[in-house]
Amino acid sequence: MAAARGPGTKRGILERLESGEVVIGDGSFLITLEKRGYVKAGLWTPEAVVEHPDAVHQLHMEFLRAGSNVMQTFTFSASEDNMESKYFEHVEEAVWAVEVLKEFDKPVAVTMCIGPEGDMRGVTPGECAVKLVKAGASIIGVNCRFGPGTSLQTIKLMTEGLKAAGLKAHLMVQALGFHTPDCNKGGFVDLPEYPFGLEPRVATRWEIQKYAREAYNLGVRYIGGCCGFEPYHIRAIAEELAPERGFLPPASEKHGSWGSGLNMHTKPWIRARARREYWENLLPASGRPFCPSLSRPDA
Amino acid sequence: MAAARGPGTKRGILERLESGEVVIGDGSFLITLEKRGYVKAGLWTPEAVVEHPDAVHQLHMEFLRAGSNVMQTFTFSASEDNMESKYFEHVEEAVWAVEVLKEFDKPVAVTMCIGPEGDMRGVTPGECAVKLVKAGASIIGVNCRFGPGTSLQTIKLMTEGLKAAGLKAHLMVQALGFHTPDCNKGGFVDLPEYPFGLEPRVATRWEIQKYAREAYNLGVRYIGGCCGFEPYHIRAIAEELAPERGFLPPASEKHGSWGSGLNMHTKPWIRARARREYWENLLPASGRPFCPSLSRPDA
Amino acid sequence: MAAARGPGTKRGILERLESGEVVIGDGSFLITLEKRGYVKAGLWTPEAVVEHPDAVHQLHMEFLRAGSNVMQTFTFSASEDNMESKYFEHVEEAVWAVEVLKEFDKPVAVTMCIGPEGDMRGVTPGECAVKLVKAGASIIGVNCRFGPGTSLQTIKLMTEGLKAAGLKAHLMVQALGFHTPDCNKGGFVDLPEYPFGLEPRVATRWEIQKYAREAYNLGVRYIGGCCGFEPYHIRAIAEELAPERGFLPPASEKHGSWGSGLNMHTKPWIRARARREYWENLLPASGRPFCPSLSRPDA
Amino acid sequence: MAAARGPGTKRGILERLESGEVVIGDGSFLITLEKRGYVKAGLWTPEAVVEHPDAVHQLHMEFLRAGSNVMQTFTFSASEDNMESKYFEHVEEAVWAVEVLKEFDKPVAVTMCIGPEGDMRGVTPGECAVKLVKAGASIIGVNCRFGPGTSLQTIKLMTEGLKAAGLKAHLMVQALGFHTPDCNKGGFVDLPEYPFGLEPRVATRWEIQKYAREAYNLGVRYIGGCCGFEPYHIRAIAEELAPERGFLPPASEKHGSWGSGLNMHTKPWIRARARREYWENLLPASGRPFCPSLSRPDA
Repeated sequence: MAAARGPGTKRGILERLESGEVVIGDGSFLITLEKRGYVKAGLWTPEAVVEHPDAVHQLHMEFLRAGSNVMQTFTFSASEDNMESKYFEHVEEAVWAVEVLKEFDKPVAVTMCIGPEGDMRGVTPGECAVKLVKAGASIIGVNCRFGPGTSLQTIKLMTEGLKAAGLKAHLMVQALGFHTPDCNKGGFVDLPEYPFGLEPRVATRWEIQKYAREAYNLGVRYIGGCCGFEPYHIRAIAEELAPERGFLPPASEKHGSWGSGLNMHTKPWIRARARREYWENLLPASGRPFCPSLSRPDA
Repeated sequence: MAAARGPGTKRGILERLESGEVVIGDGSFLITLEKRGYVKAGLWTPEAVVEHPDAVHQLHMEFLRAGSNVMQTFTFSASEDNMESKYFEHVEEAVWAVEVLKEFDKPVAVTMCIGPEGDMRGVTPGECAVKLVKAGASIIGVNCRFGPGTSLQTIKLMTEGLKAAGLKAHLMVQALGFHTPDCNKGGFVDLPEYPFGLEPRVATRWEIQKYAREAYNLGVRYIGGCCGFEPYHIRAIAEELAPERGFLPPASEKHGSWGSGLNMHTKPWIRARARREYWENLLPASGRPFCPSLSRPDA
Repeated sequence: MAAARGPGTKRGILERLESGEVVIGDGSFLITLEKRGYVKAGLWTPEAVVEHPDAVHQLHMEFLRAGSNVMQTFTFSASEDNMESKYFEHVEEAVWAVEVLKEFDKPVAVTMCIGPEGDMRGVTPGECAVKLVKAGASIIGVNCRFGPGTSLQTIKLMTEGLKAAGLKAHLMVQALGFHTPDCNKGGFVDLPEYPFGLEPRVATRWEIQKYAREAYNLGVRYIGGCCGFEPYHIRAIAEELAPERGFLPPASEKHGSWGSGLNMHTKPWIRARARREYWENLLPASGRPFCPSLSRPDA
Repeated sequence: MAAARGPGTKRGILERLESGEVVIGDGSFLITLEKRGYVKAGLWTPEAVVEHPDAVHQLHMEFLRAGSNVMQTFTFSASEDNMESKYFEHVEEAVWAVEVLKEFDKPVAVTMCIGPEGDMRGVTPGECAVKLVKAGASIIGVNCRFGPGTSLQTIKLMTEGLKAAGLKAHLMVQALGFHTPDCNKGGFVDLPEYPFGLEPRVATRWEIQKYAREAYNLGVRYIGGCCGFEPYHIRAIAEELAPERGFLPPASEKHGSWGSGLNMHTKPWIRARARREYWENLLPASGRPFCPSLSRPDA
């Protein structure tokens, strides 16, 4: 689909995926810059690019150091990658967009912001996947609105739909950095904690390693994050998939895998945490005994 | 205690506190830079100052924008403020340090990293406070190791000790940005989540506003944070105390107070969150029904 | 189906349901007698009938006082009601049983011990319902293995299956007195708390009133309980449906509806609990901050 | 103190304790009979003795079978044991009562319904213990209002007070069968769940075995329960202390110790629960992810 290129030229995402590469996306820009003081929640407009370019640049650098090898989210433009990417709540809109983009003869990636219950009109993830691939999308997946576990449930339903229809596509997932098992169709914006009380839901780096591994096992090869994904979460993806990719990201020079940096701590019970089984099995407490585990969505 | 200064000279912390100013400290450097990929957990050494000065500078800027009007933590040197500051686990060491520093005729601030149970040998917070003030400290308080609620319990016990002894001092608090009601004497390092699974314990901005107000009501006038305190947490202190201080911090240009930035959202149930009562009363869920609320410390 | 009877004769369950009566089942015998010291867990054999007939009789009396107007569970024989009743894990077995029983020309009630995921071979609740009614069952439903909320989800799926197939049946539900949202297909026996650590899951009387109302609204007219249902839970069904049935059970002489018995308490904050809104909205705490909300089933 | 008795006469509690016997109290009457339909919450009057003597007798039998070797609670009269017993919220009242009773030359047992914070005027448990023993009480302890763990904290403070004063007494504990770590001074009646939403707080039999062992290790030799203690909870005390007492209670014929009755279950994962380590380490879930772990008391 993409033209052949000479050595040294930058390859497009589709070429990279077709060559078997694991592509690591970036993470959260708006929500992260809000916490750093440069973006206003509610509006969520990206004027920080103009007003505080250093702060935006700094965050880009952090994601690159963490292992991201595609920069997509903040500018909402992926043209440098010779690919158009959008995300949708309704599968019809997504299908129209794919059909239009196909006329420009570019590879098309479409992610939907849906959960396991499907789009806002109840079209299931499996049906959405089939419609998108039939319309011509090369890369499909989910983006935003749902946490790591929930997003992978959706991806699984998409792959089952494709399989039943005898279709194939590259898969892409960009989950929230927040756990949202209690969401309805509308996703995390309908949770009472959105957007200023989501802290207890933030994923640990180990929960993200689990997410990366499960995504990989489901056949997903474009793995990134969305709102709530900080640089160290992206690094967790890159570390989990280092065996498959053959290298660690730059920021791993500051991170001993599975907590190994603790093995010189003076307290023996903290040294005892410098191992994989410890962090893999940890059930982290919230420190909030007056709060529930789950909330009821507002809609 | 501090020498008189001419106009235009920078005033020391003690002068500022004695003039009735509310001083806002800064927040977390090492733990925050670890998540951004520049510091290694376990070692916690500050070589980022040399290796990635832009990243450190960027974080300093964020805290300043958030309202911090003293820069202390990362370099562990407060000499620019003409004051020596240290923190201690044992009250004897703290007392010796105060006595030595007093010989140099500088105002002395001492914070202890103790909780309500007192120092490692069981000296109560009230007794610690009395010993420090008798040794000559002008500013006393607590720093690190315990979360917002727990640190204020300790401060309260300190003020009761001082009152009973007929003594006075300026008070300073720099709590963790993590809730730790389940800590023993050793503080958060003994919790099984330390340091890589603390996410569910991160305070919301509203919980920090409550902390700032309660600290103020206890008479504390130097209010800041320690590990886990991000720029938006510092901004929350500055916003809560804006009526007393008379101004908002620069970063509040990107923050509607009490969620007011949501009042133009398209979904009515999200607009309904643009009010103080909503966020003040929110009990945020962890999204983790298989995890407990509290942990048992390892020591 | 049942033969006509003269005045004064005891009517069978089917007649009562066809006349529009709401029948209230009984509750837990084996698990309740285990806690009273007369039945051994694991074996769960009913030798208490012979060894301690007074204890069994006492429990029967308690359920009758609580409003139960059919006695079924403990002896596993409903012949007095001129009806055969069984419960099943596999829909084929249930269908065979119905076919055999129909030859004896008796009305047949069949409850399956399945949850929303269907029987052990994956036949959905809707399909099970259709198969049972087509085989000749007059009364169908679910019994045991799943808690109140989960059992009603299953009933709802059964009614949808019947509706889609244009069929009708009387409905019966006998849920556990334990909350089990975390069950898999196998039900509560696969939860790690079974059978000796189920206490935190026990339903309150208010949660059972909600169950009774929702069951009624789904069209269920035979409403009872299974393991974990104590006499006061049965009374809660009878009290919730007193407006429809026109009378209260005898044991309500010892129960003010919605906590009204508290309105003479000496402490005003306890008097303030003597009202419906209070108990309807209470989210009861477990007093166990080191325990999770949900467990992972063992199978 | 008690007069000498001939062979065959019934020994009083004090004699039994002085001879080294471990006495097991009974459990909950009013709250248990409320759930069985015979007592009205709020009033909590014992007219069931007259109205439904069989039901009261049945519960007495259950406690006896479970191992209780003293019957005290329901009639509020212990005269048969040649001992007067009362419980108090204020230590002054308790002291007066002891002084009056001493004039009748009877051994006196006094339990206070206080928690670790002490009596309603702030007299600490240690001070209460000293005052009661100095006034002449032979047996002191705590009764009702607080859960197992909290009651033992109080007992520990009492023993420390006695030790510091060089005094001795027999100890008695009758905790609630509900976990109440979130109580203030007023005890469980101030929790929002009192009295109709306490179910998630009910102790398991294993939690009561732990309570019995810890009470024994603190030197308590009269161990029983109060509201919420069902017969199987009393049996758990008797089973835990069977090695010390030399015998099991009658109801243990229906209870394999540490779940051993499960070792013939058909499902291997349920057989795997037939062992001590399993139940000792179980952290039972509430099945209620929308509920908190702790509540804030109303007073």
